[in-house]
Amino acid sequence: MIILNGGSSAGKSGIVRCLQAVLPEPWLAFGCDSFVDALPARMQAAEGGIVFAADGEVSVGADFRALEEVWTEGIVTMARAGARVIVDDVFLGGPASQQRWRKSLGRLPVLWVGVRCDRVVAAGREVARGDRVQGMAAAQADVVHQGVLYDLEVDTTHTESMVCARTIAAHVS
Amino acid sequence: MIILNGGSSAGKSGIVRCLQAVLPEPWLAFGCDSFVDALPARMQAAEGGIVFAADGEVSVGADFRALEEVWTEGIVTMARAGARVIVDDVFLGGPASQQRWRKSLGRLPVLWVGVRCDRVVAAGREVARGDRVQGMAAAQADVVHQGVLYDLEVDTTHTESMVCARTIAAHVS
Amino acid sequence: MIILNGGSSAGKSGIVRCLQAVLPEPWLAFGCDSFVDALPARMQAAEGGIVFAADGEVSVGADFRALEEVWTEGIVTMARAGARVIVDDVFLGGPASQQRWRKSLGRLPVLWVGVRCDRVVAAGREVARGDRVQGMAAAQADVVHQGVLYDLEVDTTHTESMVCARTIAAHVS
Amino acid sequence: MIILNGGSSAGKSGIVRCLQAVLPEPWLAFGCDSFVDALPARMQAAEGGIVFAADGEVSVGADFRALEEVWTEGIVTMARAGARVIVDDVFLGGPASQQRWRKSLGRLPVLWVGVRCDRVVAAGREVARGDRVQGMAAAQADVVHQGVLYDLEVDTTHTESMVCARTIAAHVS
Repeated sequence: MIILNGGSSAGKSGIVRCLQAVLPEPWLAFGCDSFVDALPARMQAAEGGIVFAADGEVSVGADFRALEEVWTEGIVTMARAGARVIVDDVFLGGPASQQRWRKSLGRLPVLWVGVRCDRVVAAGREVARGDRVQGMAAAQADVVHQGVLYDLEVDTTHTESMVCARTIAAHVS
Repeated sequence: MIILNGGSSAGKSGIVRCLQAVLPEPWLAFGCDSFVDALPARMQAAEGGIVFAADGEVSVGADFRALEEVWTEGIVTMARAGARVIVDDVFLGGPASQQRWRKSLGRLPVLWVGVRCDRVVAAGREVARGDRVQGMAAAQADVVHQGVLYDLEVDTTHTESMVCARTIAAHVS
Repeated sequence: MIILNGGSSAGKSGIVRCLQAVLPEPWLAFGCDSFVDALPARMQAAEGGIVFAADGEVSVGADFRALEEVWTEGIVTMARAGARVIVDDVFLGGPASQQRWRKSLGRLPVLWVGVRCDRVVAAGREVARGDRVQGMAAAQADVVHQGVLYDLEVDTTHTESMVCARTIAAHVS
Repeated sequence: MIILNGGSSAGKSGIVRCLQAVLPEPWLAFGCDSFVDALPARMQAAEGGIVFAADGEVSVGADFRALEEVWTEGIVTMARAGARVIVDDVFLGGPASQQRWRKSLGRLPVLWVGVRCDRVVAAGREVARGDRVQGMAAAQADVVHQGVLYDLEVDTTHTESMVCARTIAAHVS
């Protein structure tokens, strides 16, 4: 199992798709985007759910946390059942978010990867992609890494997704 | 857990979103679309993966089946861990597809729902949505239901997604 | 040229895709969605631009109106230069919106089509599609037709997009 | 009017969104993607239309060319009517594609911008974005620029979209 953590617009999804392309075996990819897609629409912008404020701040409530926990269990079960799984996540809770995964993972081997990107560069890419609330990239760039421990860090500021993916893949095989 | 089975363009995703809106508790939604999204891009149109032929026929290989099995395990684990989960699937294998879920589910209670739609109407909606290979709707309309047992069937030919969702929701609570 | 007018989630885009499929000649399709996509992101939710309120009300400002006018000129030019063009629009301004097109069209022949849908049914489809602010369908269902004159009206409440498209196509050839 | 030309995955759309964000006045954005979206679905993969081969080669037929010509007329009309317009295009025909625009533009002032990207880097980004036929980026990277004249060239290989946009914007005002 590979778990990538990084702020919005740091380039996690691009790295995941490149990883799936360069790794010889088939890997399943899940992430916070696919989790949010699985939620009822009303939990977006609802107390208890996930709120994307106009300034890019993201806050999540108790219902979100509870569902996230069982979702985590399910993803880990796939890995335990033999699937190769890549997860990209945004550790809004910092070390507590990492701990949530650790609790589910038990002794399952995992490669922890930090995906960094300069705050200003990520904010520019957020404008370029055009499908995100402005401000998330800057708000999350540093805070999601505080207190989190990695096996490997990549930085997309000056390095292409494909090159980052090859670096990560070299640690897998 | 609620499992919906029906052919492409029968209206499963619309019913799922309506179900998430009318059910008072938060339900997570997963389905074959989200599973295919989790696969490496190269498994689409590859031997061993999933192939969407130009005529709408869909065929899946051994690698696809193997990953689908562990994915099923993971989704069932979420339900077992307390999440309310709606799945929409296309039982290309008919009763064998239902059996795959049954094997994972064990004694977990599930509501089996068949989502039917007249073949010609589904083919028209496939044109109207514009994002699917033409021919899938007609090819799958009947075959996915053969030999499958349901607690409840809805038919979107003349009934709105929201009305179907209310019918299903009435069986849940 | 064919111009369709109807509220959000009345089924205009589906009818347009079906029309493009059933009409033997190639028709270009444009609409308010493609116009909004052409605007700077900051004009969404900005004074002067277009604002989608949380309750589904849509309001547009002076900058939006000015750009819409030149966009209309451009679309009409394509028709004048020989292209077959289908436009789907939401006449938030009612007869004034129709007048905007009339002014550009001059003597160019056009088929005016009203796309109606029962307010409650449209609201249900808005939930089912899951990608629109809730409330737009109900807010627009009737008001966009007030004072507008049509050559032809279709109603998607009980009629499929494909059937509506065939009805419209019969008036074209 | 600003016209950007570059191969697939060179980063044109990102630059356009950044340009719309940094330019103080509202600019409308159109491009080959929005043109292809306006075509009937059957013209994708049809003789006479546009064909995306499995190896990334793109070929277009007579019907496509004819519609593209009237579309060009319409876009230029918007600029002539006072709109600020950014177009991103892929000059598959090289200088002939540029000439098509020139013929419509007449004396309308335009800023010609070449968007270059190293072929290998563009191919990697094509994998990372995950929504394009593999091979287009490499096939188009150089050929679309042959014989085309620019006022300005940017290269996204080592320069962010936002920085390229600022460079272009400096030539506008």
